[in-house]
Amino acid sequence: MVEVYNTIAGLRQVLKQRRQQGASVSFVPTMGFLHDGHLSLMRLARERGDVLVASIFVNPTQFAPGEDLEAYPRDLERDLALCQSVGVDIVFTPEPSQMYHPKASTTVTVAKVSQGLCGTSRPTHFQGVATVVTKLFNIVQPDVAVFGQKDYQQLAVIRRMVRDLDIPVEIVGGAIVREADGLAMSSRNVYLSETHRAQATALVGALRSTSAQVDGGQRSAEALLEHARGFIGRHAPAGRIDYVELVDPLELTPVVGDMGHGGAVMALAVFFGQTRLIDNMHLGAP
Amino acid sequence: MVEVYNTIAGLRQVLKQRRQQGASVSFVPTMGFLHDGHLSLMRLARERGDVLVASIFVNPTQFAPGEDLEAYPRDLERDLALCQSVGVDIVFTPEPSQMYHPKASTTVTVAKVSQGLCGTSRPTHFQGVATVVTKLFNIVQPDVAVFGQKDYQQLAVIRRMVRDLDIPVEIVGGAIVREADGLAMSSRNVYLSETHRAQATALVGALRSTSAQVDGGQRSAEALLEHARGFIGRHAPAGRIDYVELVDPLELTPVVGDMGHGGAVMALAVFFGQTRLIDNMHLGAP
Repeated sequence: MVEVYNTIAGLRQVLKQRRQQGASVSFVPTMGFLHDGHLSLMRLARERGDVLVASIFVNPTQFAPGEDLEAYPRDLERDLALCQSVGVDIVFTPEPSQMYHPKASTTVTVAKVSQGLCGTSRPTHFQGVATVVTKLFNIVQPDVAVFGQKDYQQLAVIRRMVRDLDIPVEIVGGAIVREADGLAMSSRNVYLSETHRAQATALVGALRSTSAQVDGGQRSAEALLEHARGFIGRHAPAGRIDYVELVDPLELTPVVGDMGHGGAVMALAVFFGQTRLIDNMHLGAP
Repeated sequence: MVEVYNTIAGLRQVLKQRRQQGASVSFVPTMGFLHDGHLSLMRLARERGDVLVASIFVNPTQFAPGEDLEAYPRDLERDLALCQSVGVDIVFTPEPSQMYHPKASTTVTVAKVSQGLCGTSRPTHFQGVATVVTKLFNIVQPDVAVFGQKDYQQLAVIRRMVRDLDIPVEIVGGAIVREADGLAMSSRNVYLSETHRAQATALVGALRSTSAQVDGGQRSAEALLEHARGFIGRHAPAGRIDYVELVDPLELTPVVGDMGHGGAVMALAVFFGQTRLIDNMHLGAP
C-alpha cells in the first residue's frame, strides 16, 4: 500500500531509514490530477530507484495572479490509486503552509533558458518552478528525478539549475504521452469544450506536418514557422496562438536562418478560451 | 595529514565513502587567508562532525566590479598548515572554472534580509554568497555548517535561505574573535596602514560604548545611533562611515523608536581608504 506523508519531517524520517538500509530513491514531482503521461514517468522512475517517491503539490508560486491556481483540477483519492497501480511507494502531499513559511523570501532564478517561449507570457512561472523543485529535491534528496518532455522548457530549466547549483541528482526526461488522436496528455485537457478538444489536435498536427517538411528538405526556420502557424490557423480556427518557436534544444535560443545539423525543437502554445495548451517536437537529426 | 581536493568529483567520491561508513560531516566555508576567527569556527565544527571539511575559495560572484577580488589576500600553504593544526580532515580548493560553468545562469536570491546594511553598498554581494553557499552545500552535503557572526548579515541570509529552501543542514554561528585591542579579526585587516589600524578600534569601541548606553537605560534607536556615529567620528577621523544601523536580530529591519525587549543588533561598516571593515554586537537582552 502506498504510504502518504503531508509533512516534511515525516517524509524525511522514513526516507532516512530507507536510505540507511542502502536504498536508492527515485522521484516524480507532480501537481496531481494524474494521467498516463505522469504514470509513464512513474514507471520510468520505478526502474531507477529502490524507493519511488511521488509528490502531489499544486505549487502556488508558479501561478501568476489570474491564472488557474484555484481552478486547477484535483482528485487526491484517484491519484493515490493510480500511484499505487504503478508501484509508487511514497506520496508526499504537503499543504502550501507546509511548503512556504509566511515570511519566505528566497527564490531560485534560472536566467536565459527561462526566457522566451512560456517565459514570455508567464514571466514568474519558472522562478516558481525552480524554487519549488529545489525545495522538493532538498526534502526528498532523490538519486534520480523524472520530468516529462512535454514541459520542454521546464525540463531545460531544471537541467540547467541542477548543473549550475551542483544538485546531486540525475535528471531523466520522459517522452510525451499522447491520446489516440495525438493530443499531448495534460491535466488541463479536462477544461476543453467539445469543439476546442477537436481542434486541439492542431498542435500535434502542426508539429508532425512541420517535421515532414524538414524530412522533405526544408531547413529554413522562417519557412518552418510559417508552415506551423499556417497549419494551426487552418485547423484550429478557435485557437489563439501564444507562440510558435523553433529553438536550440539546449539553450532554447531562437533558430535564425537554416537549422543546424543537430536539428531544433519546435515548441508551441495555443489558447482555447482560457485554456493554454503546449506541445513540442524535436525536428531533424538527431 | 589534511587531504586536499580541487575537483567536485574527487571531493564527492571521498565524502561518499566516509558517509557510507556512517560518518557525519561538518563544514566551514572560507575564502582563505585564515585567521583565528576562522580557526575558532573550525574548532566548533570539529566537535560537530566525524569528518571536518573546510573550503578555501575566493568566490568571484560575490565581488562587484571595482571591489578587491584580484587583491584579496591568498596564502594556500599557510592556510593548509593552519587547517591541519585545528584538525580539519579535508580541504576543498576549487578553481573558479571548477565552480562556474561558462554559461552558468542560475542564482539564489534571498530578498529582505539581503537588503540594507552591506546590501546597500554591495547590492549583488549576497546573491553571490547565497548561490555559492547553495553550491557548496550541494557538493559537501554537510550535516552541520559553521559561519562567523562577524558577517552578521551573511549569517542571517544563510539561515533564511536554509529555512526557505529546506536545505538539510544545521547552521551554527560562531562568536566574533577579536585582536587584543578589540578589532574584529578579518582577512582584510592586512590592508590597513598603521594609522588606519590604530583608528580601526573605533568600530568595536563604538559598539561597546553604545552597549554601555543601553545598560545605562537608553533605549532610543536614534539616540544610540547618534552616540555610535559620534564615537566613530571622534575616534576614527580617517574613517568614512558606510553605515551604522540598529536592526531587528532576525529580520534585519531597522529599529525605529525604542528597542524592544529582545534587544537589537548594532551593525556598522567603516571605510579606511579602500578597505571596508565591518563589526556588530547584540545590544540589550537577551
